[in-house]
Amino acid sequence: MKHDLFSPDPTPTAEIERIEAAYAPLTDAVRKLIDATIRSTITDEATLADAAAQITAITEKLASEQLPGAAGVHFNDEGRVWNWGNTVVGQRNAVAPPLRSEHRADGVHAQVSLGAAYEGPPGLVHGGVTALLLDQVMGQAAADRRRVLMTGTLKLRYRRGTPLGDLRLRAWIESESGRKVRVRAGIYDADGLTVEAEGLFIEPRMPDAGA
Amino acid sequence: MKHDLFSPDPTPTAEIERIEAAYAPLTDAVRKLIDATIRSTITDEATLADAAAQITAITEKLASEQLPGAAGVHFNDEGRVWNWGNTVVGQRNAVAPPLRSEHRADGVHAQVSLGAAYEGPPGLVHGGVTALLLDQVMGQAAADRRRVLMTGTLKLRYRRGTPLGDLRLRAWIESESGRKVRVRAGIYDADGLTVEAEGLFIEPRMPDAGA
Repeated sequence: MKHDLFSPDPTPTAEIERIEAAYAPLTDAVRKLIDATIRSTITDEATLADAAAQITAITEKLASEQLPGAAGVHFNDEGRVWNWGNTVVGQRNAVAPPLRSEHRADGVHAQVSLGAAYEGPPGLVHGGVTALLLDQVMGQAAADRRRVLMTGTLKLRYRRGTPLGDLRLRAWIESESGRKVRVRAGIYDADGLTVEAEGLFIEPRMPDAGA
Repeated sequence: MKHDLFSPDPTPTAEIERIEAAYAPLTDAVRKLIDATIRSTITDEATLADAAAQITAITEKLASEQLPGAAGVHFNDEGRVWNWGNTVVGQRNAVAPPLRSEHRADGVHAQVSLGAAYEGPPGLVHGGVTALLLDQVMGQAAADRRRVLMTGTLKLRYRRGTPLGDLRLRAWIESESGRKVRVRAGIYDADGLTVEAEGLFIEPRMPDAGA
């Protein structure tokens, strides 16, 4: 299982982008398959068994050459970073809704559209999924595109149920002190705030390269 | 999009169990496909395009008869409840790891094995995924198999990184007062606690059936 998870990778940016483009339609197709597996009203056993067998054959082909473990986070000497397996933003992870985000002067702004796979209470987003998305955008706001941080604490206040469908998220740095960054965030539907959050993110002590 | 999300359903338990058994191998096959889409080292465009096309054909077949929206939560007059789309425990949701849980006298005990799709930092579980799993088991502990509750607040303290692989979770009721239930929980790897949580869960006021 053990392999290099966070070390420099010699792959040029152009090749990373070719691979991402080649996997984008596949990842999106898998995402739609997840949705159909939940929502289909077909209950004929032979049809379902046939679908499972076809999917297993595709998986065997893809997995015939694969990493020994998780995808990890990589960067090359052009400054390109890729984390294809990230649960929220991983470009090759069909579990990722996906979430689209951008850094602006006032923090991170993100958009997501959540379907049947993200349900908890009937018709509503799973409370834990709102936590998952908020943690991601808060971590991005804290990291501010210049450092690596870990979640220290996270507090969520659920104001009302978050409906499935189109949602926006915002996260911004409230204060910084040494290795600690305090972040606030919210998730919003068309009518406004549904869940608010505050978190403490911590910059780990890196080993001294000169030691 | 609007359809009956939380109303009695006439389907007998035996038929629900037949459908769940028929979908189990399909859901598991989709889960393995998600993993292979992340971990494959195949970068040949034609192979990936062919896989995407085959998956799209399977999806079209499954989606040719489907619910107009999310799966919702259903119950029949035998007392059987099913929520096939739940992000953490949904029997037909390939996003669900899945998590296996049981109620005991001292609360909910759960087990889960997390692979490449649940990664955040390199080799570690995404901080938001631990929040997602904790919210689910805490909600189950609070509900105590006898009531419906919504998450009110959730506080998480990350003691250290949670490694991908086999994990255990525990959640238990700390106190109850009126419609409010306080729950504590933890997630543990082989070396002990990695994330601890406390939450307030609230029983919504139901409409008066006699009104």
